[in-house]
Amino acid sequence: MAGSTEARTDRDAAPGEDDVWAGFRRQLFDAGLLLATGVDGVYGRSGEYEAVADAMDRLVLRVGADQAASTVRFPPVMPWATFELNGYLESFPDQMGSVHTFRGDERLHAELVRRAEVREDRGTLLETTDMVLCPAVCHPLYPTQSGTLPEGGRRVEVYGYCFRHEPSTDPFRMQAFRQHDYVYLGTPAGARAHRDQWIDRGLEVLGGLGLEVEAVIANDPFFGRPGRMLAANQRTEELKYEIVAPVFASGRPTAISSSNCHLDHFGRPFAIETADGAVAHTACFGFGVDRITLALLDRHGTDTDRWPATVRSLLWP
Amino acid sequence: MAGSTEARTDRDAAPGEDDVWAGFRRQLFDAGLLLATGVDGVYGRSGEYEAVADAMDRLVLRVGADQAASTVRFPPVMPWATFELNGYLESFPDQMGSVHTFRGDERLHAELVRRAEVREDRGTLLETTDMVLCPAVCHPLYPTQSGTLPEGGRRVEVYGYCFRHEPSTDPFRMQAFRQHDYVYLGTPAGARAHRDQWIDRGLEVLGGLGLEVEAVIANDPFFGRPGRMLAANQRTEELKYEIVAPVFASGRPTAISSSNCHLDHFGRPFAIETADGAVAHTACFGFGVDRITLALLDRHGTDTDRWPATVRSLLWP
Repeated sequence: MAGSTEARTDRDAAPGEDDVWAGFRRQLFDAGLLLATGVDGVYGRSGEYEAVADAMDRLVLRVGADQAASTVRFPPVMPWATFELNGYLESFPDQMGSVHTFRGDERLHAELVRRAEVREDRGTLLETTDMVLCPAVCHPLYPTQSGTLPEGGRRVEVYGYCFRHEPSTDPFRMQAFRQHDYVYLGTPAGARAHRDQWIDRGLEVLGGLGLEVEAVIANDPFFGRPGRMLAANQRTEELKYEIVAPVFASGRPTAISSSNCHLDHFGRPFAIETADGAVAHTACFGFGVDRITLALLDRHGTDTDRWPATVRSLLWP
Repeated sequence: MAGSTEARTDRDAAPGEDDVWAGFRRQLFDAGLLLATGVDGVYGRSGEYEAVADAMDRLVLRVGADQAASTVRFPPVMPWATFELNGYLESFPDQMGSVHTFRGDERLHAELVRRAEVREDRGTLLETTDMVLCPAVCHPLYPTQSGTLPEGGRRVEVYGYCFRHEPSTDPFRMQAFRQHDYVYLGTPAGARAHRDQWIDRGLEVLGGLGLEVEAVIANDPFFGRPGRMLAANQRTEELKYEIVAPVFASGRPTAISSSNCHLDHFGRPFAIETADGAVAHTACFGFGVDRITLALLDRHGTDTDRWPATVRSLLWP
């Protein structure tokens, strides 16, 4: 789910928009819902915030209970090899979080500590590892699915933290955030049907929470000039939809969930085949759990006890 | 909680021990409980595995229900500044996961992709960010606690993913793993009392799960020659205890929880004060949720449906 819930929609901010979102962030800090860490887009979450995120997670599971989906969870780091093979390095290099470490001796360590003290760059003293921060929660899944799928394909639900290097004072644009995905692996038609079904479900469940949602065609923020062509193509083929909700007084449309049809983008490099031997197509629908939580706090206020009864009963049945 | 649940105890493996743990890992892969990713210590988790980890998490919360602890959750990355200020850079540089990214243009990007293809190092094309992977779940908490504590101190429970660069085929030594901590901030006596109380609770709850646990004095794996002195001092002052359980046929003692008395290690750099204006002392007790899950799978078998009724009723009451 490359770039999902990271819509370009909300990049085209009107002048002064940054004051609005900085104001909302200040409100979240003041209410103790988010905790500032000193890094934009990296926040602690209070128990009250987490209660909404957890409730949203459980709601997603109830909505997907009929999918016979298997459950898999991955840690927030994944193999660099996966990142390279699935094309993320090629398409979104500027969002990467490559994991580097220190393998030097005591002398080099002293130099590392000295550099830190005088604010000199540490980069050249550190070495790459075989890991990268996971940019989309479903990415580590595909290499584990190599081989032949059962008749009718397979559904997997995945939940966890993603990372994208996009520092911003806009609280909706976190660098570390959670996605809850329903992934389908199987035929091209099955992938489209999965996508369509989940867009409908997403609209229904998010609308039920009092958000004025709509599904819009979208594209991922592909890197560079060749990326602009890829983005245009993604739109023409309607491969990516986002569910957006208006936030702030300005009603800025903000992606809070998204779906991607990957065609054979993952099936080919990871040798995933349908029951009849074709390269598998995949699709995923992802609930942007942190963005949904924030949209609800924006819409219904920062005191969750005072949210509308209909919303509360959906989240905490 | 520097180095917690990363005991040196299990570093002193007998010859051939690696075959034993590789065998257990193979068993976990074969049962589908862990999913191989190609990187040692980075695994997917099945729904059955997660059901145990989640149950353990809820059990920890029930055990701590009387603590009037506030809840905070942090993402898996934290500010480099925190990492530097709290001394981790100085003491455990070799375990770090420093987050680097790409800020170049299209020409440099082409070179990056080329290097990846021919397996040349990417390091020099990437730049440092202001983030590092969180090495201990309580570390991002302390900077948020600057200021004066209430009378009696404060308790906070924190849960999440930690990262330590320690690739190993031993499934107990994961690079990405979860800790659930109860942290105390307050007086020196309060910190010791918190530690003692939680070691007792830890022994009781883990013993109740059928694990033959004991608390042992331990030390963190401080780096280099000066580190050996720090480790010796930590032992002499009994600042770190680990709860170990025997695993494998060999009964290798393996840390599955740990406690640290930090003295003023965090209170001083982050300006945390007690109600009467002294530098705060802190202590934490951490349940190593992944290690406990693995110890239970080792002890009671890989089919959780067939675990003893007493164990199941504690986990799933």
